[in-house]
This record gives sequence, C-alpha cells and structure tokens, in this order.
Amino acid sequence: MASMLRKLVVVGVGLIGGSFALALKAAGAVDHVVGVGRRAGTLERALELGIIDATGALEASTLSDADLVLISVPVAQTQAVLGALAPHLGATTVVTDAGSTKQDVVAAARAAMGARIGQFVPGHPIAGTEHSGPDAAFAELFRGRNVVLTPLSENSPAGVARVRGAWEACGARVRELGVADHDEVFAAVSHLPHLLAYALVEHVAGRSGGEGPMSFAAGGFRDFTRIASSHPEMWRDICMANRGALLRELAGYGAVLDQVRDMLERGDGAALQTLFDKARVARNRWLERSGG
Amino acid sequence: MASMLRKLVVVGVGLIGGSFALALKAAGAVDHVVGVGRRAGTLERALELGIIDATGALEASTLSDADLVLISVPVAQTQAVLGALAPHLGATTVVTDAGSTKQDVVAAARAAMGARIGQFVPGHPIAGTEHSGPDAAFAELFRGRNVVLTPLSENSPAGVARVRGAWEACGARVRELGVADHDEVFAAVSHLPHLLAYALVEHVAGRSGGEGPMSFAAGGFRDFTRIASSHPEMWRDICMANRGALLRELAGYGAVLDQVRDMLERGDGAALQTLFDKARVARNRWLERSGG
Repeated sequence: MASMLRKLVVVGVGLIGGSFALALKAAGAVDHVVGVGRRAGTLERALELGIIDATGALEASTLSDADLVLISVPVAQTQAVLGALAPHLGATTVVTDAGSTKQDVVAAARAAMGARIGQFVPGHPIAGTEHSGPDAAFAELFRGRNVVLTPLSENSPAGVARVRGAWEACGARVRELGVADHDEVFAAVSHLPHLLAYALVEHVAGRSGGEGPMSFAAGGFRDFTRIASSHPEMWRDICMANRGALLRELAGYGAVLDQVRDMLERGDGAALQTLFDKARVARNRWLERSGG
Repeated sequence: MASMLRKLVVVGVGLIGGSFALALKAAGAVDHVVGVGRRAGTLERALELGIIDATGALEASTLSDADLVLISVPVAQTQAVLGALAPHLGATTVVTDAGSTKQDVVAAARAAMGARIGQFVPGHPIAGTEHSGPDAAFAELFRGRNVVLTPLSENSPAGVARVRGAWEACGARVRELGVADHDEVFAAVSHLPHLLAYALVEHVAGRSGGEGPMSFAAGGFRDFTRIASSHPEMWRDICMANRGALLRELAGYGAVLDQVRDMLERGDGAALQTLFDKARVARNRWLERSGG
C-alpha cells in the first residue's frame, strides 16, 4: 500500500509536519527524515523526539535526492519557501504542502517555481488540534481523517500517486477537489465557523462586565467556541487568503440570520422549529455518514 | 450539608428530573421520590430504573405532604402544571423548576399560583446533554455545574434554602441572579450560540448539493454545531420565551460580524488578528476559571 520513501524532507516540523513524519515512520514507509526550519530549538526538539533523523536546509544537499518534500509552514510563508527550494529540487522530487487554502498557495507556487510547477502537488490534511509545535505531534493525527489533494494539470500521475500514497500510509482518506472548489468548500465548513466563534467570544467577553455573563457559560458555549482558541496568526492568514469566498459565505450566513431574526420578531415559533428540526436532521445524518 | 427531604415529587421524569432524583438518592438526601408525568411508559421506565419509588398525580394525595416539588417539563407546559398543582400543595411544600428561561416562568407562576407564589422558587440547572428521557438520567449530571436560582421577594429564606440545599446535595454550585438578569445572561451565553449553530447547519446543508461540502467538515464543525443536535421543540420554546433579549443579542452579534466583514473587505489582517487574539485570550481565561 504505502509508497516507500527513501528520503522525506519536512519544512516546518510542527504539529502537522511532525505528525506526518511520525506516521510514515510508524508505517515503515520512510527510511530517512530530514527537518528544515527557522528555529534551531524546534529542530533540536524534533530530533530528540525522534520525529526527524537529521536537520537540513533549503539547499541542494538536502533537497536534490529527496523523494518527497512536505511544506508545513504558515500559508503566508509558503511562497518564500517554494522560491528558496525550487532551484535545488531533484528531477524526480515531489513537493506538497499542508496549507488550509489552495488558490493562494497555487498562485504562489506558480510564481515561485515557474517551469517546475509540475513537481508541486497541492494538499490539505483536514486534521489538527489547538496545540502546535513538535511536542504536539503524534503518529495517529491523520488516521481516518480526510486529506484533500487539488492536483494541477501539470502534475504527473506518478507525482500525485506518491503524495496520495504517503497520506494513505498515515491512515488518511485521500480525496480530490478542484483548487477553487476546495476554497469554496472550506470557506463554508471551516473558515466561516472559526470566524463566527471568534466573533461570539468577542461579542460576549468584549462588553463591559463581560466576564460576569461568561462565568455562567457551560458546555454548549465551550464546544461552540473551542475553535476560538485556535492560533490567531494562522487564522488571520487563512481568512485573508480566502477572503473572497469567506465574504460570500458570511453574506449567505447573514441572510439565514436575517430569516431567523424575522421569525423571532413576528413570534413565528413554528418556522423556528422547522428550521431547528431541519438542521438537527442534517447534522445527525452528517454525523452518521462521517462516523463521528 | 444536604437538606434532608422526606418526600420529593418530580413532575417530568426525564434527563433533568431523573438525574435530580438519582443524585439526591445517591447523596442519601431523600427518603421517597414520587414521579408524575403525562406518559405512563416513561413513569414505568423510571420505576424500573430506580429513579422514582412510586407514581403519583397532580392531586392532594401526591402533593400535600411533599417537601419539594421539581417541575422539569418543557417551559411551555409549566403554567398548566403550576395551575394544576397549586390548589393541592401543603402549607410548607416548596416548588421549584428547571426552566431555561425565567421571566416567562415567573409570570406563569404568578398567574397560576396567585397568593401561593411565595412557595415557588425559580431555578435553572446549567446542565444537560443532547439526550433526553429517563434512560439518559444519571446521578452525576449536576456535579460541579452551576444551578442558578432567581428567588422572588415573596420567597421565604427557608424555602430558598431548601432548594439550594437540594441542588448542593447533587454536587452543584448554586448561584443567584435577578429574574431579568438571568434571561439577559443566558440569551448571550446559551440561547444565541444555539441559534447560531442551527443557522450554520441550515446555511451549509440547506444549499443545493449541501451534503457535498458537509462531507469535508471535520472536528471544528462538529463541535461548533454540537448544540444544533439539541431538541428543536425545547429550543423553539426557549427562543420564543426569551425573544426580547435574544433579539438584542442577535443585533449585538450582528454588529460584531459587520466589523469582521469590514476588516475582510478592506483586507485589514492586523485588525482581524487583534480580534482573534483578544477572543482567544478571553476564552482561555474563561476556561481556566471555570476549570474546563
């Protein structure tokens, strides 16, 4: 099953990159893992934890004989990383990423890689926790999770298969979407909920004496706002990178809220209940299908 | 600690009423529990499960010698229940409820109980699960949870103390709020999030081909929308009962969303990050304080 990798390079050995390396090692799908990153302390820690076998840099000695390079850095840094590594790639090296948005990453990759764009297979693992850094990494992070690839027309089937095989070796379920479709879908099911959760905490906590009301909040509030404990810089980058789709989703959601407000204003309990019922049925059906 | 109850009557032996009875029994704080309800099957099941010791009815033989009566029925039925039980209460019987809204319950209680209103101590346990019915009940449901009492000027200190003592025997942390303050606070920290979660599922699932995007949703979406699997009838009643405060909260939240939309439109990543940061700090502080 697993596409055996002789050499994997992970640029950015945090939660995602570290877990990818650990999962491939656990599956016996990689021989040698080299970590690259800005902070020496992070790389040392990743060595200590057995996530990587060696440290490297964005230069030929690290990259020219690599089978696969995973870029798992904040999206805003992806273009600089791609620009730095492109000249040093081997002819058969495949590069993929883990960014939460894809149109901006693909544009950055085209700008940075030029004629070598065919070596870049864009990817997005749908997994994570509120924690970050190599200490947060674990081999099971991707087990049973979706990984979305958005292959480019320039990619070779063999390159896409190598990336797919690596994620499947991590236990993930690999699915493909078009680049623009990806960003529309995740604006709706991920980016919008994050924005709404941050906005709710701001709304409740930002008022004068906001801590008083919050002290009465319970499990519903805790779960609804869990994603508002996510990394602010990362989510700023995602929202900015996908703001076209996100603004459309925000407008669509606002229209639903307007309907709900009208129901409340005219005291239409039946319409509210119908909406609640429909939503509950849809959510429960989704839970069943997703095995959650 | 526990105020010992000789006889407890639970009207509506579901998740809340059943767990209250089980918790008091586990604490050795009650001798005899009588269940009252519309459905014979539910009461039989509660008997089988050892939640109640006997079944009764809203009549003198059940109520006149009761120390405490808990009404845990949908809020919309509270007035009818109070009207039916008021004539049969003993002189020292204390009645409390578990309704999620309090202004409507207090108005209903005043209308239904007249001169006996002093015997009604309004309450709201901040606990629950998505499940309902006696099979969902368990003795630990209220352990460490907030229970809010909104005592009336007509209540006797002894009556309030009896209700407080019973909830403390269940392991709950009892706090007091004014009736209107209660409804403002819970509009913000509970009713609004429920409305927003139902609306998000409607927004994502209600579009044509909505199941496609939803199939990519992951843990963030699951937790954000967990409360959209809540009981639609119950939440219709809560939203309708508290629609004044809820409309104010919806307007305030809409204003925050407008700010966020403006930040996105003008590409102001710094302002977004500041808002995300503030929200994360506020939420993490809340989590620490609430021991969550």
